[in-house]
Formats: sequence, structure tokens, C-alpha cells
Amino acid sequence: MGELVNAVVGQSGGPTCAINATLAGVIKGCLDCGKIDTLYGMKNGIEGFEKEDFISLLPFFQRNPERQLDLLSATPAAALGSCRKKISQDCEIEEIYRILEKYSIRYFFYIGGNDSMDTVMKLSDYAKRNADKNLYDVKFIGIPKTIDNDLGVTDHTPGYGSAAKFVATTMQEICRDCAVYTKKAVTIVEIMGRDAGWLTASSVLAKFLTGAGPDLVYLPEKPFDEDAFIKDLNKKLSSDEKPYVVVAVSEGIKFADGTYVAEKRVKVNDDPFGHNVLTGAGKALENMVADRIGCKCRSIELNVLQRCASHVASKCDISESRRVGESAVRHALAGETGKMMCFRRVKNEEFYRVEIFAESVENVANIVKSIPKNFLSSDCLAVNDKCIDYMLPLINGEIDVIYEDGIPVHFEF
Amino acid sequence: MGELVNAVVGQSGGPTCAINATLAGVIKGCLDCGKIDTLYGMKNGIEGFEKEDFISLLPFFQRNPERQLDLLSATPAAALGSCRKKISQDCEIEEIYRILEKYSIRYFFYIGGNDSMDTVMKLSDYAKRNADKNLYDVKFIGIPKTIDNDLGVTDHTPGYGSAAKFVATTMQEICRDCAVYTKKAVTIVEIMGRDAGWLTASSVLAKFLTGAGPDLVYLPEKPFDEDAFIKDLNKKLSSDEKPYVVVAVSEGIKFADGTYVAEKRVKVNDDPFGHNVLTGAGKALENMVADRIGCKCRSIELNVLQRCASHVASKCDISESRRVGESAVRHALAGETGKMMCFRRVKNEEFYRVEIFAESVENVANIVKSIPKNFLSSDCLAVNDKCIDYMLPLINGEIDVIYEDGIPVHFEF
Repeated sequence: MGELVNAVVGQSGGPTCAINATLAGVIKGCLDCGKIDTLYGMKNGIEGFEKEDFISLLPFFQRNPERQLDLLSATPAAALGSCRKKISQDCEIEEIYRILEKYSIRYFFYIGGNDSMDTVMKLSDYAKRNADKNLYDVKFIGIPKTIDNDLGVTDHTPGYGSAAKFVATTMQEICRDCAVYTKKAVTIVEIMGRDAGWLTASSVLAKFLTGAGPDLVYLPEKPFDEDAFIKDLNKKLSSDEKPYVVVAVSEGIKFADGTYVAEKRVKVNDDPFGHNVLTGAGKALENMVADRIGCKCRSIELNVLQRCASHVASKCDISESRRVGESAVRHALAGETGKMMCFRRVKNEEFYRVEIFAESVENVANIVKSIPKNFLSSDCLAVNDKCIDYMLPLINGEIDVIYEDGIPVHFEF
Repeated sequence: MGELVNAVVGQSGGPTCAINATLAGVIKGCLDCGKIDTLYGMKNGIEGFEKEDFISLLPFFQRNPERQLDLLSATPAAALGSCRKKISQDCEIEEIYRILEKYSIRYFFYIGGNDSMDTVMKLSDYAKRNADKNLYDVKFIGIPKTIDNDLGVTDHTPGYGSAAKFVATTMQEICRDCAVYTKKAVTIVEIMGRDAGWLTASSVLAKFLTGAGPDLVYLPEKPFDEDAFIKDLNKKLSSDEKPYVVVAVSEGIKFADGTYVAEKRVKVNDDPFGHNVLTGAGKALENMVADRIGCKCRSIELNVLQRCASHVASKCDISESRRVGESAVRHALAGETGKMMCFRRVKNEEFYRVEIFAESVENVANIVKSIPKNFLSSDCLAVNDKCIDYMLPLINGEIDVIYEDGIPVHFEF
């Protein structure tokens, strides 16, 4: 019997609908390659890794593997648990290498956002910096996920398509709901995205595809001007086309001076402790409408539903997320390290298609990708047809959700 | 050619996922019976009726009727528009009778909640009170809808099952989302229901079916006690079972003195107009946690998504809503008037089954049906197995949602 060859996989950062599909892809890749003895799952990302809190994953998929992998792929959040930890000091990295060697782990897969890519970078860098130390040889591969779609290099991120599909679907439904009365009313929908407006932009797909979508859209990519907002809103309200106006707003919009619009503070009055509460951007806009227009107005936060509503996940997103996980295993086995898996959209083809490639993580980590200028428009919808063409294929298709007794079945380790 | 026999149908009150399925049922009933020359749709309920704002509905369903009716049934909100108007004076009623005669309308169908049943009652009562006046003979039938499930006599209301399915589905997803971190945290989910806790109770289905559901549930049926809440929450937080606690709370919970918990007011500080804002029940509980426990806490309002998320509608609800619409036509043609259509659950059968019957609207209108005492429990989940058995069949089954380019297709007149 030769030396054991094991692998480990972890999930980190905020949950998405697709992070478990990527985990399913890594599991599938390890099952199929025949070269991995044990695939460990680290509980709660690197936090659990450091405590050697592992579970052996492959035995869960011996029976009925396809059904089990499909079920895992349709389960929201992070089935292995997550963390928000960045590693920093060399002593911490040395301890990680000790554990890797102890468990004969030759391949390290980390699914996450910017912080996770930073972890992958630090671990692989350490090996480069210490080539003389004869370190245990481990391949480190990062696999992106974030509903925010704000990672560099990759055409888009796993997780974004499903969140965008939820936003577009829900936005159409909210607009139908708003359309039933004849009274003038404003509905403000706050959508996630602290630094980039990708998810808010996806609400425009509802407008484009069905006509029932937002009338005004505000993104972090453009400074927010309260006077212009009130002016645009009044214009929409005074049109005879329809009595209701729907506004889509990104949580991260800022005034020209760089302060977040959401920072407007409210104080609980009859509360002896008198602490301050941070309102959201939607609530801040609602207050502006109350003060300066005075018509009926409400705000709706889509909140965490955007990242966990896997009952309406995008098939494109879920299958790509799985593919990218499988591909990560192949790249690691081929000897690559310090890489993040990326999508490249194949150009000049009739139908949407992506290729998967691995990029040095240095070129990706700690960069925020906003909506590019050539996707933005100066009209009320904030983005142009180029942006719509980019987003459309990502929300395409529906997964087969398995329901039992009326609610979806999820996978649990 | 004999005298024309026409009918009219309208929708009123808050939108639901099922109110268009009931409209589809009325249309189907009129198409099939061969006795209705024109079926008018009143735009925006009785408000549009009084302005004679009608559209002729049957021509929309000449081609491909089954597909079109299915599409209408899967469309949220009120396809004919809605209103929140109650009729009151006799002169208003006389004007309505004038319009009914003018358009040869012999059958009047009104889909709505309590206010709508009040309208049906007043219109049919007027005929009774004025038997000597030789009024135009019209049959008035009310068809219930409300996500709140708080109408009397009927076993449950069309619209409730789909809203309950959304709540249970979303609650499971939120709980998966909460489960990913190891830090102690509280998530409060505010659910609709001003006077009755039916919808909040449906969140318990997620717990019952999957284990991933709320840990603490607060309903309007029980006075809310802040100290008991903090005590129960601390107990859950200090258990080693899991670090997160999820609380489901009805928007309508009240303190023992009858004041709404949501009435705790906040004041916008840096706002020269200084108006007051009404916080929701969820926000009020979040503030209590911040003041008295201090751990990480957030609140989520499910908001209008509960009544418009038809992409995850209950098949049981949608098909019953259609059946009750068809049945209304049969009852009207049989000469009944002043009735509301109701469901009766057939007892002592192996499987869930309902019968439809018509009840005098006097026995239904202006009554609020809360969760009965024998459905309530004294434990943290607030409702018992009897209540779960009652709710379970109502969320059962999924409808075939037609997607185009990634988002659902809706019907529009």
C-alpha cells in the first residue's frame, strides 16, 4: 500500500444558493478521479480546520451518488458550515501545514469570496517563500462564490445567477402586487450589494422581460443625489401611465461625499438605553419620500432571502457551480496551486457558453469588480442593454427541486 | 333572441397568490355552463364597477383556454385590479342596481376578504329589504380570499395555503442560512397577520418537517410578555445544541394591555421634520434583544413576498381556489344569493379532501377567526400537533410554473 493521498474542502464567507453545488462538484471530482483516498470536509472553514474538526465526505455518497449530489446542490447555505476568518501570521500557517501533513492532505479546496482567496494566496505563497524548508507538498485551489458577483478576472461568480434570478422573479411579483390599487404609491426595494450593484441591476431583467420591474434604479456605482431622486420620482408619479412607482436600490449607495445613504440614524424614543439604530438604504429613501413628497410609501428589504432562496435557483448557476468544483479537482491533480477557478465567456457564439480556467490567485484576491462604465446608462434604469445581455443567460433554467410534504428537501451531513 | 344574461366578477382587498386562480375558476364556470353571454370583469373591484369600468373576459380565453387559465392561475396579485372600498348608503346601492340592469348582469361574483363579504351582504340584503320594489333580479355570491386565513365558517381560505407554503419554505432556507456560523446570534422573522397567527404558525411546519424551523414562536392569540421572551431566548442561547436562535413573530402581537408591540416608536434624529416612524414587531423584538441581551441580532420582514410569491404557490391552494370559483358559478345559476363559498374538510377519511358549500354571508361577514384554543400549546412553538395536522395538507403540491428566459410568465389582461 502506497502513501495515502487525501484532500480537504471547506466553505467560507456568506452563504449562497450555489456554494453546496460547488462542494458537490469537488466531491464528484474526487469520486470520479480514483486518486483520492479520503476527502475531508472542514467544519466552518479554516476555523474548523485549525481545530481538526473534519468529517469524511465520500462515504455519504456511496449509495445513490447522483441523487445525493443533486440534493446537496439544491441545498442553500453552507452544508459544512462557514466562517469569516482571515489567516495572517506565519505561525498560524505553519500550524496549518502541520495539520495538512498529519492528515496526508495533498489537495486543499477552499470555496469562498475575497477573504477565502486571500487564505488560498497566503497558504500557497508560504510554500513559495519557503522553498528551502522542504514543506509538505500541497496544492491549494480557490473556488469563487458570492452573490455580489464582485470578484475579478472571472466573467461572473457562482451564486450570482441564482440570487439574480430570485431578485428578478421577486421584483416581477412585487410589481404585480403594487399594480392592484389606483392610489399613488411608492415601493422601495432594497437589494444586497455593499460595493457593487450587480444584484440590484438584475432587478432590471424583470422590467426588460415582462414590463413589470423597477421604474427607478440606484446603484453604488453612481453617487446618490437626493434632489435628483425626488425630482425623478415626482416625474414618474405625475405621469398618467400608472399610479405606482417601484424603486430598486442597492444597500451600498453613497452620497457624492462618500458617506453611505444608509447611515442616516434613527433613535428609539421611549427606550431608556437610547441606542442608535442604523437604517437601511431603503428606509432612508422611504424617509426622504415621507418628508419631501408625502405620498404612500413603503420599503421592502429582500434581505437574506436573496442568498438562500434555492427553491428558485438558476439552473445555469447551479450546473456551472458544480462544473467549476469538478474542474478544480482536475486542476489540482494536474499540479496547479495558488489558483482561483474562473469562468470565461466564449465570444462570438450563437449561444451562451463558458470555459473554465485557473488564474493565479494574486491577480484576483482583494479586488472588487464593480459594474463597468460601459454597462451603465444615464437613464432611470441605470444599466444598458449590454448589461442585460450579460446578465440574461446567468438566470436561465430551473433546477428540479425535490419537495416532500410541500417543502423542499435539503441535504444534511 | 332572448334577453341577454350577463355576469360580472371583481377582486377586492389585499392581493394573494390564489385570487387569480379563483377568477380563472369563475371564468371556467361561465365558459362551461353555456348560459352566460358576457362575463364582465370590473377593474379595481366595486370602485371600477361604479365607474362602469368593465372588460369583457371570455374573449381572452377562446384560444387555448386551458393554457391561458393555468397561466392566470399562476399569476400573483389581482389581474383585474383591486380596491379597499366598502359600500354604505342606499343611494350607492341603488346606483349599483341601475348599472347591473343596464348591463343585463344577473350574476355578481366578488372575490375578497371581510370587506368584500360585507359588500355582498349589503347588496343582497337590499333586495330582501326592498322586495316590493321589483328590483332587477341579481344573484350575489362572495368568494373568499385572504392569506390571513381569518374568515369564519370556511375550513380555510383560498390564498392561505400558498402564503403558508412560502413561509415554511423560506423559514427552512433562513434557518439553513443562520446555521453556518458558530457565533451566538438571534434572527427574528416577522410574518404577516394582524389579528390571527395562522401564517406565523405555518413557519412551524418547517420545524416539524425538516428540523430547520423557528425555535420560538409568538402569535397574536397570546399576550406577549417581554420578560418571558428574554428568559426563553436566554435559555435557548445558553443551550449547547446550536449557537443560533430563530424567532418567528406575527406582526400583530400585543402586550397584555392590548397595545401592539409594533407601536414602539422611533424618531428620525437628523431630520428637520422629526416625524415618527412605526417600527414593526420584528424590529421591536430586535431592540429588546439589543438592550437586554446584547448578542448579534437581526430582524427580517417577509413583507409582501408572502402574498405574491406565486412561483412557490401550493398546488392544493391553487386548485381549490379554482374549484371554488367554478362552484360559485354553479351555485349562482342554481338561484342562490347572499352566500359566501366555503370549504368543509371531510372527516374520518384517510386522505385530505374538501367539499365546497355556500353559507349565508351574514354568518361570515365581519367575523375574525383566530387560531382556536385547542390548536395552541404552551411550549415554545405556540401551536400543537392538531394545528400541524390542520395546516399540512394546505401547503401540499407544486404548480407547474411556466418560465421564459429565467423568470415566470404571468397573465395580463
